[in-house]
Amino acid sequence: MSYNAWFQCINGCPGQFSLREVIYRCPSCGDLLEVQHDFDALRSRSGAAWMQLFDDRYRRNTYPYGSGVWGKKEWVVPFIDNENIVSTYEGNSNLLWADRYGKQLHVEDLWIKQCGNSHTGSFKDLGMTVLVSVVKQMMADGVPIDAVACASTGDTSAALGAYSVVQEITEERRIYLANSMNSLRIEGQKTVAIEIVQQFDWEVPDWVVIPGGNLGNVHAVGQGFLMMHELGLVQRLPRICVAQAERANPLYRSFQDGFKRFEPITAQPTLATAIQIGNPVSVKRAIRTLQRFNGVVEQASEQELADEAARADRTGMFNCPHTGVALAALRKLVDRKVIRSHERVVVVSTAHGLKFADQKAAYHLGALDGIRPAHRNQPVELPPEPRQVARAIARHVERARLLVS
Amino acid sequence: MSYNAWFQCINGCPGQFSLREVIYRCPSCGDLLEVQHDFDALRSRSGAAWMQLFDDRYRRNTYPYGSGVWGKKEWVVPFIDNENIVSTYEGNSNLLWADRYGKQLHVEDLWIKQCGNSHTGSFKDLGMTVLVSVVKQMMADGVPIDAVACASTGDTSAALGAYSVVQEITEERRIYLANSMNSLRIEGQKTVAIEIVQQFDWEVPDWVVIPGGNLGNVHAVGQGFLMMHELGLVQRLPRICVAQAERANPLYRSFQDGFKRFEPITAQPTLATAIQIGNPVSVKRAIRTLQRFNGVVEQASEQELADEAARADRTGMFNCPHTGVALAALRKLVDRKVIRSHERVVVVSTAHGLKFADQKAAYHLGALDGIRPAHRNQPVELPPEPRQVARAIARHVERARLLVS
Repeated sequence: MSYNAWFQCINGCPGQFSLREVIYRCPSCGDLLEVQHDFDALRSRSGAAWMQLFDDRYRRNTYPYGSGVWGKKEWVVPFIDNENIVSTYEGNSNLLWADRYGKQLHVEDLWIKQCGNSHTGSFKDLGMTVLVSVVKQMMADGVPIDAVACASTGDTSAALGAYSVVQEITEERRIYLANSMNSLRIEGQKTVAIEIVQQFDWEVPDWVVIPGGNLGNVHAVGQGFLMMHELGLVQRLPRICVAQAERANPLYRSFQDGFKRFEPITAQPTLATAIQIGNPVSVKRAIRTLQRFNGVVEQASEQELADEAARADRTGMFNCPHTGVALAALRKLVDRKVIRSHERVVVVSTAHGLKFADQKAAYHLGALDGIRPAHRNQPVELPPEPRQVARAIARHVERARLLVS
Repeated sequence: MSYNAWFQCINGCPGQFSLREVIYRCPSCGDLLEVQHDFDALRSRSGAAWMQLFDDRYRRNTYPYGSGVWGKKEWVVPFIDNENIVSTYEGNSNLLWADRYGKQLHVEDLWIKQCGNSHTGSFKDLGMTVLVSVVKQMMADGVPIDAVACASTGDTSAALGAYSVVQEITEERRIYLANSMNSLRIEGQKTVAIEIVQQFDWEVPDWVVIPGGNLGNVHAVGQGFLMMHELGLVQRLPRICVAQAERANPLYRSFQDGFKRFEPITAQPTLATAIQIGNPVSVKRAIRTLQRFNGVVEQASEQELADEAARADRTGMFNCPHTGVALAALRKLVDRKVIRSHERVVVVSTAHGLKFADQKAAYHLGALDGIRPAHRNQPVELPPEPRQVARAIARHVERARLLVS
């Protein structure tokens, strides 16, 4: 069976464009393009057969199928030659059971999808392996591309830096854009949804909570679930919550109004730097996703996101401030009983805490501007005297005993 | 079949001690203890059957066996109840084929075991999940332990922080020591060797290169290979290279002398902070391991380790300076033809580069004391003018074209 996929306009303008073409926007309306798959071809395999195939490949050693992205190759970019795939075995990150944290929150079936446990420390690896591999395929096919470029404050550039291949230098110069308007990345990012379900032995959770800035990620997760639903792997869809920083909350504002209108804002500085976006490029498709998934949008203040991240760290996590936004939003939804105690909830953690070690330290030192750290865990400085250290530990243990009893 | 393991003296003094006992050193000679397994019991299963069991569990969802450590539970700590295991699904980290870097080095079958792609960003997770789980089991069995403590500059403490459980506060205070003299951690760390072989579909590589400071890790890797050999999973052993920083090189010095004597030194400050150790606690068992594995010791200067890490980063890696030490040592061994071009080499990368982002930035800014960065990749500051940016990229592409042609 030959699978196929192509670009088409997200608004349904006519025209199909090859994924090998250097094209980012619809030539008719100027809006974004999205990757469309040939579902008739994909249906030649049953839902059960797809699950079996994905399970057989899961984390195995046959390149590139052990990768969480490329293990679903037919659903991502079917035409690419395996020798052109640039992979760091991305994906298949741990779905961590947040045992202790969930108990505190009274949501005991709480799971954190640890997308940051990866080569470059964020979920961006998932999309970038697809984009860079397609570029390598294009170059192999003779398309003249000199460089791959993106504008970013962090995670995206780090992921691109790791995946970019030595450029084949050609006569005509071309720079291929890797920013999130490029829909190839969505195809990699959507595998997070498939992985989550696969890691629950093909059960769909009740909720997925995900931080949102440029909003490509929520669309990607939605696409993953819809594709599984369409192809018979799952029979229902989860609800989705997008969590925004209060200082960069245009989607939250629009949600308050039933998505009747959307107005870009000027985002204010937030600790959750990667989602400090006032005019998200993927807003249209994100709203469609939320409408399809009976979704909600919640927000978190700087104080709330910082405190929530520290609370989570105290139970053994170590995630980025965007995950803090998601957890703070989760807490509000639980308090308001939008999310119920018996429901299975997955929080998508988008990056590793190591990317924000300085911010975490500043929180506990009380050095974050405008934040009064409610869950401060200050370092205790002691002279190198064993007896003094022992005494300090004893005091600490005594305090912990009082807290427990 | 009931499997069993216990502590015994590394020098063979009589006495077996329960792993549940709070004991770190041999009561007779004061030297270290090591975990010994009941090999007769383990032999009740054939080598082929062990491989099948480990493969069946590999990265699957049945807690805790999807963890790289606990998937080998019978070989690690067999007696522990699964409900007392504190796991973040550690291990099974990517064995990255260092395609581009290996070509530069003329060792094309070169692989990096990415132990830093993990919950706390270093290989220490592997040992700490074992230690903390044993402590939880001890507490469940009524042993009074108030706290788990370790002294460390970084990775070890981070891993402990994530795994430590809420303490059951009891009357008699006890603090359980988690430093590397505690041999329970070795049992987790040795699974790296098993994973590497498993990831090569049960083929043994020719070389394992590993950075060495306190030297528990080389001993652990050796133990993993020996156990596989003893139980019929593999028929041969790799050679092992321990890589030391020149400024903390007591094992290298001892190796020059055929290990006839070992003299502790005062370690000098090195960029490879985690191996800045002059008097390694595991030196005796590390030397035994190297003698058994036809091992070598190589060293790297500050200049060499910093340049080598930058070279590797340029090909898409992003590892710690200790990995830089290992790669620099590898280069020397290749140059001296100790390691041959056709051999399969695995470098154990002990931590994620994100833990050393500041150091990496300082290298490229030329701000590392005493280092002249030979592989500097300086940021280019430009005004926010599209034409100037385009021109700068064009210049860069032109330079790259000249380099390639």
